[in-house]
Amino acid sequence: MPVVDPSSLSGRLVAGDRGALARLISWAENGDPRFAAELAPAWSRVGRAWRSGVTGPPGAGKSTLVNALAGRLRATDKRVGILAVDPTSPFTGGALLGDRIRMEERSSDPGVFIRSMASRGSHGGLARAAIDACDAMDVAGIDEILLETVGVGQAEFDVMSAVDTVIVTLCPGAGDGVQAMKAGILEVADVLVVNKCDIAGADRLATDLEDAVAARLSIARAAKQGWQPPIVSLSAALGNNIEGLVEAIGRHRAHLERSGLDQLRRARRVEQVRRVMLEHLGERLWGAGGLRELAERALAAGDPPYDVAERLAARVLRGANP
Amino acid sequence: MPVVDPSSLSGRLVAGDRGALARLISWAENGDPRFAAELAPAWSRVGRAWRSGVTGPPGAGKSTLVNALAGRLRATDKRVGILAVDPTSPFTGGALLGDRIRMEERSSDPGVFIRSMASRGSHGGLARAAIDACDAMDVAGIDEILLETVGVGQAEFDVMSAVDTVIVTLCPGAGDGVQAMKAGILEVADVLVVNKCDIAGADRLATDLEDAVAARLSIARAAKQGWQPPIVSLSAALGNNIEGLVEAIGRHRAHLERSGLDQLRRARRVEQVRRVMLEHLGERLWGAGGLRELAERALAAGDPPYDVAERLAARVLRGANP
Repeated sequence: MPVVDPSSLSGRLVAGDRGALARLISWAENGDPRFAAELAPAWSRVGRAWRSGVTGPPGAGKSTLVNALAGRLRATDKRVGILAVDPTSPFTGGALLGDRIRMEERSSDPGVFIRSMASRGSHGGLARAAIDACDAMDVAGIDEILLETVGVGQAEFDVMSAVDTVIVTLCPGAGDGVQAMKAGILEVADVLVVNKCDIAGADRLATDLEDAVAARLSIARAAKQGWQPPIVSLSAALGNNIEGLVEAIGRHRAHLERSGLDQLRRARRVEQVRRVMLEHLGERLWGAGGLRELAERALAAGDPPYDVAERLAARVLRGANP
Repeated sequence: MPVVDPSSLSGRLVAGDRGALARLISWAENGDPRFAAELAPAWSRVGRAWRSGVTGPPGAGKSTLVNALAGRLRATDKRVGILAVDPTSPFTGGALLGDRIRMEERSSDPGVFIRSMASRGSHGGLARAAIDACDAMDVAGIDEILLETVGVGQAEFDVMSAVDTVIVTLCPGAGDGVQAMKAGILEVADVLVVNKCDIAGADRLATDLEDAVAARLSIARAAKQGWQPPIVSLSAALGNNIEGLVEAIGRHRAHLERSGLDQLRRARRVEQVRRVMLEHLGERLWGAGGLRELAERALAAGDPPYDVAERLAARVLRGANP
């Protein structure tokens, strides 16, 4: 492993310095180019942390679950990193204050690093920033990364595509099984959690999910891995059966380690490169590159948008770097 | 206006032929290049339809609302197009059958065109396809386009960014005001609907929303337009106060027409061109262009992903078209 200058920011990150980690994550959040520059010397250390994502509809108790899971993992002395990924708002980029506060319960424990993150970047910025933050935590020696997303949309899918184990959290009532299947949320599940297992309808929900999994309905991600998502009934708030979830994550991890984890992770990195490259191209060509102005003029002249886009792309491909 | 050959597919589209419209939307859905080619001759006809988007959390009654709204608009003899945008599933691209069935109620009316659409494309494909489908409906002479999205994520935001009036639908209980604000959903609202106004908690939800709007909390889109989103309490299922929603849409439309609709729409087209251009570039450079292979090799050699992306982008920008 290459030597990293211990007095550099990278060096402090490798040593597990929380201030260094916080700074790198802020850079990741803001799309600051210093992130890539500082992470590069320590890049070979990425890949040791296990990355679990917790997703599910609003109100399913994801934050409570993440908190309970972190507690359980701490009991086995794992270093835990929590990243609460706030909704991508392309309009304000704002995270509501509450999201930044609610997980403070664990923050006095030096073995837990907690961070909430909003996307201020362009489209796809949330997934990029979340991957970056995980990489930084990984280098900093965190063993178990827990990513929590709000909502069930494309950005969340993108974030979840980048983690090792996706935990889809549902609860009886609102956001129940049928709605979840409608929203396509089961498709990303490696582990299904029925939270609030003490309230009415929980058994029914678990049964519905078992049926869906048995029928191989909408479990595309797991099916690709040759894996059948287990259904874990628990109560995050009461602390019931959190160990069942830890155990399910462990079994999924063992399964992947036997069946092609390296390949999966490599494919994710290739996809990351593709996206970052296109982002770079978009930024450099569009504004400073003068393409925006060309687009505006052509549209004002009444040209159809596809013709304009095609022409601009051809211009770039011809090497006519404007 | 340019003459369009009436026997061509474009010509049949301009004449309002439903088969031609259905074919163009299928092409849009599948990212088929024939879409752009066939729409181009009729491009100058785009811009007459009013495009309303209906969004909100799962279970808020969006489909029922769209159905009721379509009925009301039909009563004034408007031609109505309904586009139900299914969740973007990057895993299967699948739409659940139910979504394709549930709006059949209106399908025997020749003044209503109904279509459900899933994204099979790459990232951002859903928004692209939805815009295309709206453009096709617009050319086909549809007066009022109603877009319904499932969920509240980035893809839905992207779709909503492309419509004229965004109707955010909430209902008491699950997916209520606080959850909605957490999910950033109010930020896109031009009109707020409290659906299921007959059930408990509806008045409270309406009051919460009024407070949020009055405090200018999270209403970024409307605020930019100098518009205060009205709150319309109705029951889509019972048909109560649908006219209140029609009236609110009309007021928003009049406001935009007075205050810069053309400019808004132009900005949306510029953004569309940017995205389509980047998609083109991604497709041509990545696979056939050989960049994927270069990326794979560099990653396998241990290079950090940002370095690899940077190098590939620089290669393209230098005009070294591989």
